[in-house]
Amino acid sequence: MTTDTETTVRTAVAAGADDMVAGLVEWLRIPSISGDPDHHPDVRRSAEHLAQALRDTGFPTVEVWETAGLPTVFAEWPSDDASAPTALVYGHHDVQPVTPLELWEHPPFEPTIDGDRLHARGAADDKGQVWFHTLGVRAHLAATGRTSPAVNLKLVVEGEEESGSPHFAALLKEKADRLAADVVVVSDTGMWSRETPTVCVGMRGMTDGQLDLRGPSGDVHSGSFGGAIRNPLTELARLLAALHDDAGHVTIDGFYDGVVELTDEERALIAKLPYDEQAWLVNARSDTTYGERGFTTLERVWARPTAEVNGVWGGYTGAGHKTIVASEGHAKVSFRLVPGQEPGDIQRKFETWLGTVVPPGIEWAMTWYGPGVRPCVTPLDHPALQAVTRSMAAAFGTDVLYTREGGSGPEADLQDVTGAPVVFLGISLPEDGWHAPNEKVDVSLLLKGAEAAAHLWADLARSLPR
Amino acid sequence: MTTDTETTVRTAVAAGADDMVAGLVEWLRIPSISGDPDHHPDVRRSAEHLAQALRDTGFPTVEVWETAGLPTVFAEWPSDDASAPTALVYGHHDVQPVTPLELWEHPPFEPTIDGDRLHARGAADDKGQVWFHTLGVRAHLAATGRTSPAVNLKLVVEGEEESGSPHFAALLKEKADRLAADVVVVSDTGMWSRETPTVCVGMRGMTDGQLDLRGPSGDVHSGSFGGAIRNPLTELARLLAALHDDAGHVTIDGFYDGVVELTDEERALIAKLPYDEQAWLVNARSDTTYGERGFTTLERVWARPTAEVNGVWGGYTGAGHKTIVASEGHAKVSFRLVPGQEPGDIQRKFETWLGTVVPPGIEWAMTWYGPGVRPCVTPLDHPALQAVTRSMAAAFGTDVLYTREGGSGPEADLQDVTGAPVVFLGISLPEDGWHAPNEKVDVSLLLKGAEAAAHLWADLARSLPR
Repeated sequence: MTTDTETTVRTAVAAGADDMVAGLVEWLRIPSISGDPDHHPDVRRSAEHLAQALRDTGFPTVEVWETAGLPTVFAEWPSDDASAPTALVYGHHDVQPVTPLELWEHPPFEPTIDGDRLHARGAADDKGQVWFHTLGVRAHLAATGRTSPAVNLKLVVEGEEESGSPHFAALLKEKADRLAADVVVVSDTGMWSRETPTVCVGMRGMTDGQLDLRGPSGDVHSGSFGGAIRNPLTELARLLAALHDDAGHVTIDGFYDGVVELTDEERALIAKLPYDEQAWLVNARSDTTYGERGFTTLERVWARPTAEVNGVWGGYTGAGHKTIVASEGHAKVSFRLVPGQEPGDIQRKFETWLGTVVPPGIEWAMTWYGPGVRPCVTPLDHPALQAVTRSMAAAFGTDVLYTREGGSGPEADLQDVTGAPVVFLGISLPEDGWHAPNEKVDVSLLLKGAEAAAHLWADLARSLPR
Repeated sequence: MTTDTETTVRTAVAAGADDMVAGLVEWLRIPSISGDPDHHPDVRRSAEHLAQALRDTGFPTVEVWETAGLPTVFAEWPSDDASAPTALVYGHHDVQPVTPLELWEHPPFEPTIDGDRLHARGAADDKGQVWFHTLGVRAHLAATGRTSPAVNLKLVVEGEEESGSPHFAALLKEKADRLAADVVVVSDTGMWSRETPTVCVGMRGMTDGQLDLRGPSGDVHSGSFGGAIRNPLTELARLLAALHDDAGHVTIDGFYDGVVELTDEERALIAKLPYDEQAWLVNARSDTTYGERGFTTLERVWARPTAEVNGVWGGYTGAGHKTIVASEGHAKVSFRLVPGQEPGDIQRKFETWLGTVVPPGIEWAMTWYGPGVRPCVTPLDHPALQAVTRSMAAAFGTDVLYTREGGSGPEADLQDVTGAPVVFLGISLPEDGWHAPNEKVDVSLLLKGAEAAAHLWADLARSLPR
């Protein structure tokens, strides 16, 4: 049964759809690759382009905030209801690199519409999901007859998310008063599938770094010295192998201390999803699953902490052979974290563990890539999450289920600075090609995103405590 | 007590010393780097230069043998004693690359004499040790009053030893009749020290190759998939870690089958060497020794088989971080072999072992760098070894001890093709800088080499069975 409100919102979104898509296409033409210094002028252009679009949408305050790196766009549209709660939307306007270019079927920065699909770098991650909010707030006003949103609406759209948000935490602290909010709405995630709309309830945290081992002070001949000194590549292998036990548990002392275990309800909700292992394996480019004993695949990637080796190198790696005992071995190691774990604590525990497993004759050094990112999970009974759930259900006309993201983002920083809960409003699909060639988004889902946003601002005004 | 023969040989060597050094200096100017295609014309020039020098020495037959790669020089000087045994000297005229050039104190191809030291690439490895034979045979004739050597003397000096002798085995087979010999004398090794002259009695064999593991068909996001699929870098670490047990033994099933253990006499002879662990560690660029339990350092590098990781790579290895589960992991692995082991057998056993340790979800492939090199050890009681021992003792005026080489060379091929035992006549020192910047040789030791050769040809004529 479709309600009047649903019909009104849908009609308003449909009326603005063509303009919304046309505007997004123009924005997608800007190659705002934050990871490539040659494209930094484009990231700045992207910020200005978005700022102008938000002014055109009606936001009375729009600012481009400079950082030590690339700019963030901030917009604010106060409600005329003095006691209205404040919602802060988070997204980003920078995009991933596009190499290898030859794998793209459409040029990444020449947006192409093919039926329901809009092909371009950034179409789903994250420009499309930022842009639908321009239509969402207009539809909210049209459907409610208001001239300002029912909530105080703020947007913060950063320009370095694809580069690890190196300056975002500092900016959040600097601008804490401007960013004050009762709820943070992150639009930078996806849904289970077109047929199974879902709301994400959390992301894992992460901390990662580089481990350097050193044995001999220079490479030595493996015939003359091999077998009589420690080989740093063998020692690297031993410690990486020792990171997990036979049951797939991480062996670092205290690694699981404080980990919040899944409740029976949470496990049941995950089990309700129409999980298809073969389909999952296609996305994982793998033939078989493997992981921590006692957990399903979805539980492993969403709700369990992990230790992963992201890269290794050392010794002779060229063509042919060079029989040496190498001086150095290196590994990139990352830890995904779940509620109850703190990145800094895990860093300390890993270093303590290294101290116990690295043998005499081998020196080690661990360099962390920053302080790490905390995990972020919203309780299922939180009013803001309930509001998002209702809004997605209204937009899609069906029940919605819950997912999590195995990945990590700056959500915990947003949560800390605002003191507000974080909820996720995202409409991208697993097959949208984030970070890969041939990224696309479904235009019909962008419109559903706009509908859900329109519902959400009205719902939050009703349901959040005042 | 110096014998008359020793005095006569020494006088003859001293008389020819200046000419010998002058000739060697000219040869060392030729940058015969077989590993660099730009220098292949120089390797050919080096072969012609040596051939002319051997003709000038008096060898009636001197030929430059072309191969599919770079040329080998062959020379033959028959004895006028029809029943004389035949000795075949092996060496090589190509040299190692010279990078990093900035570390050389003297230009590598502008030979410099500084007191007793002759600095140049190839001074010790191996041009100097080939060249002293030109003086050695002349001194032999002068000391014995002969016009031809007491043995049928042959030299085979290859041009690709520093590139792994890729065409030498085929050449040996093709020229087997020309190379027929009763003993092979390898002049491409060193001694324990200036104060402790030694004879090498063997080298380890070797087989090596590249191991490739594949997990996902492409890199995947470690947040989305990590912890729920096999990580090929973790699996690589596990199998490299599993190559040895806690006692440092190689765990490959059957790896030690047939290994000829050191006799008490051999262990005692090794223990007689004035081994200085601190000095050994300086050469090993290491702080501490480590290896197979139950063996000394020298036993480990000379007489025990090993498995070593020479290189590893896979996943993200650039600056900063990229949180992926990589598609592929790679390692270069080498095995040093001792008598009783066959490279082909070890290759099969390693592959069988891989089949048992690589888990489902990971594909593996092993590519061997050729058939490998067999170990080569001469029994202490062999008449040819006794002759070399006496000749070295005569040249140095002191007892000589025995060493082995941990490295590997084409000696086993020489042994197979000729059916003759291999003995080693080398005078280089551990500090001569083989394969490193600032290679040098002691001129006084080149003269000792010439003396030892002069004694050896007379001794072999007496002591080898006819």
